[in-house]
Amino acid sequence: MSSNEMRQFVLAEVPKGKLSRDNFRLETAPVPTPGDGELLVKTRYISLDAANRAWMQGATYRDAVEGGDVMAGGILGEVIESNDPNFAPGDLVSADGGWREYVVLSGKVCQKQPNIEPKTHLMSVYGVTGLTAYFGFLEICQPKAGETVLVSAAAGAVGTMVGQIAKIKGCRVVGTTSTDEKCDWLINTMGFDAAINYRNGNIYKDMKEACPDGIDCYFDNTGGEILESALFQMNMHGRISCCGAVSSYDGAPPQGGPRGVPGLLVVKRLTMRGFIVSDFFEGSSVGTRTDAINQLKDWVDAGKIKVLEDIIDGFENVPDALVGLLAGENKGKRLVRVDD
Amino acid sequence: MSSNEMRQFVLAEVPKGKLSRDNFRLETAPVPTPGDGELLVKTRYISLDAANRAWMQGATYRDAVEGGDVMAGGILGEVIESNDPNFAPGDLVSADGGWREYVVLSGKVCQKQPNIEPKTHLMSVYGVTGLTAYFGFLEICQPKAGETVLVSAAAGAVGTMVGQIAKIKGCRVVGTTSTDEKCDWLINTMGFDAAINYRNGNIYKDMKEACPDGIDCYFDNTGGEILESALFQMNMHGRISCCGAVSSYDGAPPQGGPRGVPGLLVVKRLTMRGFIVSDFFEGSSVGTRTDAINQLKDWVDAGKIKVLEDIIDGFENVPDALVGLLAGENKGKRLVRVDD
Repeated sequence: MSSNEMRQFVLAEVPKGKLSRDNFRLETAPVPTPGDGELLVKTRYISLDAANRAWMQGATYRDAVEGGDVMAGGILGEVIESNDPNFAPGDLVSADGGWREYVVLSGKVCQKQPNIEPKTHLMSVYGVTGLTAYFGFLEICQPKAGETVLVSAAAGAVGTMVGQIAKIKGCRVVGTTSTDEKCDWLINTMGFDAAINYRNGNIYKDMKEACPDGIDCYFDNTGGEILESALFQMNMHGRISCCGAVSSYDGAPPQGGPRGVPGLLVVKRLTMRGFIVSDFFEGSSVGTRTDAINQLKDWVDAGKIKVLEDIIDGFENVPDALVGLLAGENKGKRLVRVDD
Repeated sequence: MSSNEMRQFVLAEVPKGKLSRDNFRLETAPVPTPGDGELLVKTRYISLDAANRAWMQGATYRDAVEGGDVMAGGILGEVIESNDPNFAPGDLVSADGGWREYVVLSGKVCQKQPNIEPKTHLMSVYGVTGLTAYFGFLEICQPKAGETVLVSAAAGAVGTMVGQIAKIKGCRVVGTTSTDEKCDWLINTMGFDAAINYRNGNIYKDMKEACPDGIDCYFDNTGGEILESALFQMNMHGRISCCGAVSSYDGAPPQGGPRGVPGLLVVKRLTMRGFIVSDFFEGSSVGTRTDAINQLKDWVDAGKIKVLEDIIDGFENVPDALVGLLAGENKGKRLVRVDD
């Protein structure tokens, strides 16, 4: 690879079943040149998110990623050249830059980031992850002290944040995850009140034991059986924040939705609401994006929120990092360090 | 039957499949005597509602109706004797009195009604039906002029009200119903912009034709396939008011819920919310119960709302009236006149 070449991963073909390393192809390409209003950005970190897999299933809140496309993904990068007066070389920016070592982006789709250390916090607690937990839980669930909060994919990036925010709000917090070891960790390290290994035994019965007073708020990262079981155990006027459906991302489309929709919504007067985090950036009953970051910073500084990052070194490891995330390998926010 | 006897219908056994006349048993019983704080009420009208069937499936927002119970149902009645100082003989009251000619009720569960004519309006537009449409549509859907509103069971009591309120709010209104004749009636008599016979052809395709700009608000009385089809055609930030699930009341419990839950809720940032009307009586963003009745009265007086009542004579016809309602026989609010 010459000095004006870079590496990138292309989605060779859209997976029909589980995603594997072989669905990606490593390529070299020329480092691109920015045009008017554009920036050349060097990738420092790549964010791995369950949503990356959902993008392969079709258009969502963004265009689908199709076979032959450079794989999409959130990055934290440094501006190397700028043809946009709002940015200068050396600036840190976040954007959907994709899985490549350099990228040219319009300044309009880049968000300038402050210089804080560790800068990975810009992709975890102060990035999409932390803000998703903040708005998706506080705005949609409107939790009250003493209520029972269930979080699925609780050991993941968003789940660990939701659980900690729920504890700050005085709730009883129960998480679902995929191993006994992660259950112990949720309880002993992360302060959850109870945890359920959804792969082990009877999810309905285990949930009933872990939530003896029913469920007031459910932060749903998974959909599927966990959502169905939660619907049957929600209390009157319960709130369900629909953040994702990871149970249905990595395989064939689900054949049916959860039983209890809409019957249980009527009988128990439940609210289910989907969102993406940017819906709330300009304002919500719990503030704007700036308010949210300030609040999260106060909680981090006060030691009330532990920032969990699972950082993997090396650009070449991005595909494995995503495959592993979908298999439930990580605790907290998974990132690949490309160059920092 | 002697003069101190009355007729009542008992649910002989909980139906396993479709409800039939034979599931009920006509009995005579002594006219009961009120105790302290109680009223003897003579039934004037009995309300027929799809929810009557749902009550046989198990506990909902009220106890289940079980085999051997006098069948439950809303009534409008006249106080004959009162041991509650808040009520006097001659007062009109509404309550869950059940299918019987006389009933003893605690004054606490009776709502005194004004003397208006026709008094059936107390059970349709100013009763649970009208209020359900008012709050369930305006509060949960928050419709805006120019939006497309879909209503299922559109020719029914609540559906006809929702459609008319949506037209008053400047929306494009589409209804689903069970016959071509009712489709024509919705369009030509009730002012709907389009109507879909869900028993005839392809619900997804017909809905797409009737809602070329997608659906912003869906008022769901049915659940099932119509809900699933609507979910796929909702616009970004759409709102679904979950009022009932009549598709699943009269038969075996459904095997699965609608596909697209929770995936489409996330991608399209939808809200689904169940309710029962009394949730809003004390206040909502569209007022209290009194505000709602005043607004409905203004609309009726101005000729903007047609009050549709389907009144069947004779206590002995109550079971057939419910069976027929579940089969989609009625247009507007179905009542049985017992004695007026």
